[in-house]
Parts: sequence; C-alpha cells; structure tokens
Amino acid sequence: MSYERPHLRNVEGYVPGRQPIQTNVIKLNTNENPYPPSPKVMEALVQVQAEQLRKYPPPLATPVREELAQLHNISVENTMIVNGGDELLRLAITTFVDPGVTIGLFEPSYSLYPVLAEVNNSPVVRIPLSDTWQVPAHAAQALNKAQAKLTFIVNPHAPSGTLLPITEIESLASQLNGVLLIDEAYIDFVDPQLSHNVVPLITKLPNVLILRTLSKGYGLAGLRLGYALGSEQLILPMLSKTRDSYNVDVVAQTLAKQALMDQAYAASTWENVRKERNKLYNNFKQLGLSCPESQSNFLLVTFPQGSAMARRVLSGLEQRGILVRYFDTQGLQDKLRITVGTAEQNQRLLNGIEEILRESLSIMRKDSVRA
Amino acid sequence: MSYERPHLRNVEGYVPGRQPIQTNVIKLNTNENPYPPSPKVMEALVQVQAEQLRKYPPPLATPVREELAQLHNISVENTMIVNGGDELLRLAITTFVDPGVTIGLFEPSYSLYPVLAEVNNSPVVRIPLSDTWQVPAHAAQALNKAQAKLTFIVNPHAPSGTLLPITEIESLASQLNGVLLIDEAYIDFVDPQLSHNVVPLITKLPNVLILRTLSKGYGLAGLRLGYALGSEQLILPMLSKTRDSYNVDVVAQTLAKQALMDQAYAASTWENVRKERNKLYNNFKQLGLSCPESQSNFLLVTFPQGSAMARRVLSGLEQRGILVRYFDTQGLQDKLRITVGTAEQNQRLLNGIEEILRESLSIMRKDSVRA
Repeated sequence: MSYERPHLRNVEGYVPGRQPIQTNVIKLNTNENPYPPSPKVMEALVQVQAEQLRKYPPPLATPVREELAQLHNISVENTMIVNGGDELLRLAITTFVDPGVTIGLFEPSYSLYPVLAEVNNSPVVRIPLSDTWQVPAHAAQALNKAQAKLTFIVNPHAPSGTLLPITEIESLASQLNGVLLIDEAYIDFVDPQLSHNVVPLITKLPNVLILRTLSKGYGLAGLRLGYALGSEQLILPMLSKTRDSYNVDVVAQTLAKQALMDQAYAASTWENVRKERNKLYNNFKQLGLSCPESQSNFLLVTFPQGSAMARRVLSGLEQRGILVRYFDTQGLQDKLRITVGTAEQNQRLLNGIEEILRESLSIMRKDSVRA
Repeated sequence: MSYERPHLRNVEGYVPGRQPIQTNVIKLNTNENPYPPSPKVMEALVQVQAEQLRKYPPPLATPVREELAQLHNISVENTMIVNGGDELLRLAITTFVDPGVTIGLFEPSYSLYPVLAEVNNSPVVRIPLSDTWQVPAHAAQALNKAQAKLTFIVNPHAPSGTLLPITEIESLASQLNGVLLIDEAYIDFVDPQLSHNVVPLITKLPNVLILRTLSKGYGLAGLRLGYALGSEQLILPMLSKTRDSYNVDVVAQTLAKQALMDQAYAASTWENVRKERNKLYNNFKQLGLSCPESQSNFLLVTFPQGSAMARRVLSGLEQRGILVRYFDTQGLQDKLRITVGTAEQNQRLLNGIEEILRESLSIMRKDSVRA
C-alpha cells in the first residue's frame, strides 16, 4: 500500500544542478557568485553565541526586515524573509492557489516552477517566449483566460540572461487578474546604468510579489536566505499563516543582516561579474559562438550542429573539471548555460571549449574523409 | 480584492511562544534546553569557510544523514533532514493528505497541528485524551472511521510530559490505516532506564514516521534542525518531491553533524535536566501543587481555584522577569507549562511562585474578611 497522495505518484521532482563535494572542480553550473560573501559576514559568523543557538530565533526576523525596509525604501510590513527563494515560490502557491487552480509560467524558465505546480495538483498554462526571449503581446490575456491565480516570471530571464524592461513588467502585472511573482534571483547583476528597479511597483500594484535572494548577489547560496517584497495583503497571509513559524534560523538572520548592510562590498562583486561577463561574451563571439546579451551572471551559449556539439562540450568540460549546465528540453538542446566565473576560471573555460571545438572539427574532418 | 485562498481568510495562524530579545529574562516558556550546545558545535561554527557559504549546500544533506543512520542503526534511506521539526509536520501533510481529507490528532497537544490542517483545508478528527493523558482504547477505530490519512501524536506528550509506552504506540500504529507521525521532540529527556526506543518500529510498520529535533535535546533551537525517520516509502516522496530542494543550509548541516557526534555531551545535559525536573516536581508537591510525572523537559502544574490563580502566577512571574506558558484552552486553563531550567533558574521560579501564592492567599483572606 502506498501512503503518498495519488497525484504525487507521477511527479518526478526537481533535480538540482550537481553540487560536487570535491573542491577542485570549477563550478559554472548553478550560478553562484564567483566571489565570497562580505568579510563582515565572516566576522559576524564567528561572533554567533551559544546562547543564540540555544534559544528560538526571532520568529518574524524583524531585525533583517528592518534592514530590507531601509535598503528598498519601503515598510517592514512589505517584507518577509524566507529559507531560500524556493520557499517563497512554494509559499506563494500554498497561499494564493487552491489545488486544481491554474498557475502561469513562461517557457523556458526555472524548471522548479512546474514541479511546484504539480505538487499542488495545479494545471500549468505555459506561455512560450519569442525566439529573442520576449514576452508575447497576448500573454496577460492568455493567462487571464486560463484563470491563472499566480504567474511566475523570472527577470532577468533564466536561462537566457535577458532583461525585460520595467514598462513591460508593469504592463503585464497591471493586466493580470492574479498575482505576478517576479523572480529577481539575478537582479543584482543588472547594469546600474539601466536604473532598473521594479520595487516601487509594489505600492502601485497589489498583485506584484518580488522574490530576491542572497544566494547569487551576496555570495551566500549555502546560507539559504531569500526575501519577498510586496503589498501587505500579499505578505501578511504568508507571514502569519502559511509560513513555518521559525522558517529562518538565527545564524542565517544574523549573517544576512551583515551582508545587506555591506552594500559596497556586494556591489563591487556585481561590477566584477559584469566586467567578466562582457569579456566572456566577446570571447564567445570570437570563437564563433552566439549568446544573447545577458544582464545576469550567466550566458546561454548556442553551439553549432544542434545538440551533439553542446553535449560534446558539456562532457569535454567535465573531463577537464569544469561543470556547466545543459537542459535537455526543447529549444535549449543546442545550448549550454554557463555561469560567469572569476577571470582565471573563465580563461580555463575558454581554453577548454576551444580545445573541444578543435578536436571535434578534426574528428568530423576525418569522418568526412572516411565517408 | 483579496488574493488569498478563500479558506485561508478564516485561518488565524499559529502563535509561537514569546521570544523576547532581552537577555535578562528567564525563559521557561518554549522548552529550550537550559544548557548550551556542545562546545564541538561552537568549534565547528568558527571553522565554517566563506567558500562553503558561497556554494549551494549538499542538497540531500548526506553527511548528516549518514551520522543519523549510524546513531539509530538504520539505513540512510530511512532518514531525512528538515528545517526544524515544523517543516516535517507540514511536509507530511503535503505528501500524504489531499486537501479535504481528514487529519487525526489527540487533544490537548501541540497547537500547530490543527493550524497546519486548516492551511491544507483538511478537517480534523480530535481524540480527547483521558484525565491522565492516556490514549483511549477506541482511538484507532475512530481515526480509521474518520478516514484519517495522517495522525499526529506527540510522545512524550505535550503539554503534560507523560510518556506513552512502546506497546501502546505500536498497537495504535499497527491498527491505523493511515500514517502515524510520532512527534518525539522531547524524547531525549526520557529516563534511559525505561529503554524507550520506537525507532525499530519503522522497519516493522511502513506507516510509522518519527519526528526528532535538535532544538530541545541538543540545545539548538536557534539552528532549526529536525529530522525524520521512517520507511523508505514514507521518506522518499518527501525527500525527492515535496521538500524544498535545499531545505537545510550548510551551517546547520555542519553544526548538526557535530552535535549528533557528541552524544556524551548531549546525554550529560539530559541527565541534568532529569535531575532538575525531579527536584522541581518534588518542590511543587511541597507547595501543594500537582503535576503529572514528566518524561520531558517541562512540567504541567495545576493551580488551585481554576484559571484565576494560574493567570495570576503567569503575570506575577512575568513581573519578576520569568516567562512560562499558559494555554487558554479547555482543560488547561488552571495550569501552567513550565520548562525545566538550570538549578538557579528553577530556584528563582520557585521563590517567585511561593511569593505570588502567599500574596494571593493574603489578598483572598482580606477579601473574605471584608465580605
């Protein structure tokens, strides 16, 4: 006899990117910041007291939320802390979407979204993005027609790295009947000259829920710290009803506050990532490889000759101790998503790709001679 | 317009015990261990590297699970790590109980259970415990009749502290058609002479799911680390489908492993708690106050003259900087749940209670003279 809920039996679950324990691997597969967290985070870590560990943490995480309110120029009531951004994705479903009710998403995007919808037994309406990763004009209409109570959009987009401008986000949100969750996991890497800031939308539009995380921008993927920004009518039910009472531990709360306070350090890592991203973009071009202009900390590189070459580069890099991400889904099978690393890591990546491409060409030439 | 799911609008949410930020308060209200975590935990904390924080944590928390498997003499596949025991309570519902399907519980018990059921839109069947906190003989029959797919039982019982013997747990589990989640949050404080260990049940009965936590026994409430033990058919769907992919951060994983490895230290704190518990029990008796024999780290003390005196002691203690827990629910209104503290804290508690009782008696005498 199975105790699992019937609809879960066919759910396959989310498969995260590989997290090898070996430290000599160059991890360009899960979009971590290549730079460590602020030294102030490490100073705060060693100052955590046994007495803090012994007692329950502040249940509402007010000290961190006060820091967020100041950083984003909003009220504490518009903020909530979560155990990694994934918790917010799940909580938004639990709070706003009855089982059986539709969830909207754009394709391709973060492959966890449809898994969470499946767990909730919710049908999914999938809006395909254009060839240039743009949201189609009819999106809001289609989502409303499907009665989507919640729609996920990731911006900058993953896995392409492209940025949807504020005007388009606002237009989409204002047309939607349901909640629009804007997953801004990669927002910190956007060029500041673009002045891209959708936070003011939360006071204009009660259905806008913003997800942020310290995993990428603040070099703290290991700490599991994300946060939500939104109207009080979206935040309050998650904060007081559906969230686990003590969802973020005292160490994460303490370190997150320090990381958020040291904006200068974080911004310097973002600037470095942007410089390296632009170099990498040009280097790929020189190798004859195309990728969209990215406002994120990764590039989606298209390889010639369909999926065969992308897969060859994937395994060739792995043999060289370099992990990148391959998605075996339609429209992505000839591509690799490559996280921007440090200058040294990127150089080793480029050397590896160049070698693999050269070898492949020479094999193919031999094959055609034989043929 | 409200975006919240309709059934959530009437949910009030769980209200956790007070967690004051002031450090001069004697907290005997939320059952923390009065002793700090193992010194080895603190040593491991300061050795956490920036590089560990930068990268995602081991998604399956295998190193901690291996430690658990060894500790309990079971397989890694029978274990799962959670972000505090509350996460397991929620996950069990998400995994085994369709919305609208019944959840069973005993009354009184942990007040979070019915809140989680409400969030899942599940009706609750409540089995009242006897006056001596015993499970009634017809419990399994009633739970099966109500088609409960999941039943929560806390053992040692909260808030009474009494222990249900293995034979009764086994009998209940073997009769139930649904899953029995045995919440063993307080199990570490049970007298070892009782040889109480239900873990072997998980290999005999596929519907037994055990919850453990490091919050109480290991002095780590601030860290949010719980775990599940159960048959693979219960663990696997939670591990691979319904759990957030990276539900426990790298610091918590690292520190939990150290805490579990230092059994000698943890056991010494449990022994101290038992000694203090027994002293406190006798002291209450000497004050004319009754409480059930507790196998936990708290005592449920009954005050004379109904709820008035219990409330008076609650607020009198608070004025003295001592927090204890009052439950304004039927059957508990004349009682206070008091966590066993250190010898010094318990003495201050007793002094406080004695003073308050004396003052109350003298006020009552004056009142009766006036009347």
